[in-house]
Amino acid sequence: MAPQLDGYFEQVDALSESFIERLRSAVAIPSVSADEARRPDVIRMSKFLVSELTKLGAHVESRELGPQPEKPHLQLPPVVIARYGSSTSKRTILVYGHYDVQPAGIEDGWATEPFSLSIDDKGRMYGRGSTDDKGPVLGWLNAIQAHKEAGVELPVNLLMCFEGMEEYGSEGLDDFIGKEAKSGGFFADADAVCISDNYWLGTEKPCLTYGLRGCNYYSVSVSGPGQDLHSGVFGGTAQEPMTDLVRVLGTLVDTNGKIQIPGINEMVAPVTDEERALYDPISYTMENLHESLGSTTTIHSEKEPTLMARWRMPSLSLHGIEGAFSQSGAKTVIPAKVTGKFSIRTVPDMESEKVNEYVYKYVDEQFKKLGSKNKCEVKLQHAGNWWVASPNHWNFSAAGKAVEKVFGVKPDLTREGGSIPVTLTFEQATGKNVLLLPMGSSTDAAHSINEKLDRRNYIEGTKLLGAYLHYVAEEPMSNGA
Amino acid sequence: MAPQLDGYFEQVDALSESFIERLRSAVAIPSVSADEARRPDVIRMSKFLVSELTKLGAHVESRELGPQPEKPHLQLPPVVIARYGSSTSKRTILVYGHYDVQPAGIEDGWATEPFSLSIDDKGRMYGRGSTDDKGPVLGWLNAIQAHKEAGVELPVNLLMCFEGMEEYGSEGLDDFIGKEAKSGGFFADADAVCISDNYWLGTEKPCLTYGLRGCNYYSVSVSGPGQDLHSGVFGGTAQEPMTDLVRVLGTLVDTNGKIQIPGINEMVAPVTDEERALYDPISYTMENLHESLGSTTTIHSEKEPTLMARWRMPSLSLHGIEGAFSQSGAKTVIPAKVTGKFSIRTVPDMESEKVNEYVYKYVDEQFKKLGSKNKCEVKLQHAGNWWVASPNHWNFSAAGKAVEKVFGVKPDLTREGGSIPVTLTFEQATGKNVLLLPMGSSTDAAHSINEKLDRRNYIEGTKLLGAYLHYVAEEPMSNGA
Ligand SMILES: [Zn+2]
Ligand SMILES: [Zn+2]
Ligand SMILES: [Zn+2]
Ligand SMILES: [Zn+2]
Repeated sequence: MAPQLDGYFEQVDALSESFIERLRSAVAIPSVSADEARRPDVIRMSKFLVSELTKLGAHVESRELGPQPEKPHLQLPPVVIARYGSSTSKRTILVYGHYDVQPAGIEDGWATEPFSLSIDDKGRMYGRGSTDDKGPVLGWLNAIQAHKEAGVELPVNLLMCFEGMEEYGSEGLDDFIGKEAKSGGFFADADAVCISDNYWLGTEKPCLTYGLRGCNYYSVSVSGPGQDLHSGVFGGTAQEPMTDLVRVLGTLVDTNGKIQIPGINEMVAPVTDEERALYDPISYTMENLHESLGSTTTIHSEKEPTLMARWRMPSLSLHGIEGAFSQSGAKTVIPAKVTGKFSIRTVPDMESEKVNEYVYKYVDEQFKKLGSKNKCEVKLQHAGNWWVASPNHWNFSAAGKAVEKVFGVKPDLTREGGSIPVTLTFEQATGKNVLLLPMGSSTDAAHSINEKLDRRNYIEGTKLLGAYLHYVAEEPMSNGA
Repeated sequence: MAPQLDGYFEQVDALSESFIERLRSAVAIPSVSADEARRPDVIRMSKFLVSELTKLGAHVESRELGPQPEKPHLQLPPVVIARYGSSTSKRTILVYGHYDVQPAGIEDGWATEPFSLSIDDKGRMYGRGSTDDKGPVLGWLNAIQAHKEAGVELPVNLLMCFEGMEEYGSEGLDDFIGKEAKSGGFFADADAVCISDNYWLGTEKPCLTYGLRGCNYYSVSVSGPGQDLHSGVFGGTAQEPMTDLVRVLGTLVDTNGKIQIPGINEMVAPVTDEERALYDPISYTMENLHESLGSTTTIHSEKEPTLMARWRMPSLSLHGIEGAFSQSGAKTVIPAKVTGKFSIRTVPDMESEKVNEYVYKYVDEQFKKLGSKNKCEVKLQHAGNWWVASPNHWNFSAAGKAVEKVFGVKPDLTREGGSIPVTLTFEQATGKNVLLLPMGSSTDAAHSINEKLDRRNYIEGTKLLGAYLHYVAEEPMSNGA
């Protein structure tokens, strides 16, 4: 039986101006987690959430995470956790968001003050954190409020987890989630997880995201001379680390993105017919890619292989070289030690340890081929695993129905090429299905200047979050494919 | 008939403390040409030289060069030119030096104040400019003074050219020298040129330098995307400029320094038996190289090929990449435009234009092989020609005799791997032989922290400059091989 949502939707519309005021208040708090001097603002933002949630009648706790690693004089911002409803006859949905934001200053080129919500005549609401991730976080609060004021009972128990360090590595969060997901913990009774912290593939059609690539980031250092040398004096007499490094880096991947390291591509899960069928309906064109790329220098010329390459195939990028001359102008230095940086985006069924093993072996082999007296060292700098959920799980089918109800279209089923590490943390800690249900669109410019959230995305997005809770309360509990 | 030098030498010894005081006064003037704020000090240094030379009875002129290119609000420091003696029966020797210095600050790691001469118990005189090039410049003044006070007549007419912008590209000097070397110009009657602005090969044995390599400096840019990209979002979909660039740079030279660009090595003049014979007597060992290199990662394992590789063979060095990630840490950027920097040290008989032509052709070919949609552009950033003089010219044989007289050993006949562009300027402008007659030793750390000049090198070097003037006055005017 389809849920009765009309009362809730009407209430969201009626409250929409006050929801925008709530977002304005949140954006006005510059809760920049990367900036030590802004830490009091991050704390202030946590208190704003505690206060709002308390007013809505939720049970709220502000949980301290202790001092910041490597900055022991600085306390980490608290995780704000809350529970709304505790009926044993209802399903329990755990939602996640973050209340910290990226740094921003008008001097970076913003058209408006970044920490003052500015709405233009097209309903674009500019401000740091509007879409990442204050809008979605407040969406949950708005949904509770609209239910209350419409007199509609929330059909699930809602657990909330809002952190304040996402933009600075989510320090301390993994352990916290691990503990609270255990029996007796705050999140112990979660039946499914929903994260709203990513974006639609385009601007018109909502999406549900069921996969993320992982990332193994490497450095490869070549060193020889005791100090940087002058190429006039030493050119021709010393084996140059930069020559060796560039020759090694040049063997890793070709122009069309094919990784040359044996074993890597062999680990990739084959595309099933079922999976392939997901790509055709997706609202995306090569023109969309060209626009975001700012050029037509693409590897593939069709939508399907392009999206697969972005979401479910590994890629290897060379990011740069540390220790070499990197300024403009002309310097005749022979750098003594140079460190190349590259990373591999990983996908099912690549094993991170095996990827490392293959990378180390290949780089060593390529370096040995050079016959150099220099020293070459390859290291993993960090690794984050890929994540894929089943888009057939009841958590996803419920969200799909909610999208259809609110927007009148079936959502795109998407993956992301980048990583959202907390996704994997929740999946592993709770053992439950995790859904990524974005509110913002592809043009929101999270992390850039002029970040914005469209009024439509915020208000209809609030309806979507509420509708999702209704559908997920009723959806038959299939576990998907 | 050997010149009578005893009186002069004794006078140099007698005046040595006052010569050191003269150096102390010069070092105390921080005449840093690269630093706009120090321009008044550079001017002050020029006035110090004018005053000292005037006191010695020289005819001195301070010649303005006009505003600094690209900094029209800033006047270039003057060229201080002087003449001591104008007898038509004497030969005329033109000497060059520079009175500006490299930047220096105690915060860079100097053990003593850089602009305060500090002498240790081994006679090492620390201070910016001590060896580069105030010591040698003052050596000429000291030589005049010692001759005067010893009552020994200077056997040549001495022309001096001291500039104040050497460490910042000798702006405006080429045209000036070109004009003054013409008939009627200040340098028109020069019979030979002597430049003291380089260093011995080691610490014990003086050298005469008869060759310099040239340098053609290139940039190769690869661009594609409209802006830097996130490798999570775009890895696998875009052809990455950094991948292309690294693959192109990797084809230029191998680990053992062999340039892979067809046509380059073919232009190198063959080594004659006569030239080869110059290498054996040179006081240099692989241990010297290992020490200066700080490692044993050399291309060659013997002295002779090592010195040839440094002095008379071309080399290609990769200096770095502009536009890529160059910091420490891990950034997952796909740079939109990257510019590799490399240079080729050139030697006889390489033609600069042909080198460019071969480089452009090869880079284009290598890039085309990649089949990339990105754009690749290779450009010459600057070029300076190689220079070789005949070490058998009377200017050199005179200097060799002077070295034997003062130091009791035959000098090493050396080249330099780097360039001293003014050398070529003087040769071309005057049409006369140019000799490089260094005062400092290989350990003087010009351009580094703790620059110094040994007391012995300064005082015996002053004797050498004076003795050279005597021998060059008498040497039969053979033009060498
Ligand atoms: Zn976010
Ligand atoms: Zn973010
Ligand atoms: Zn110099
Ligand atoms: Zn210098």
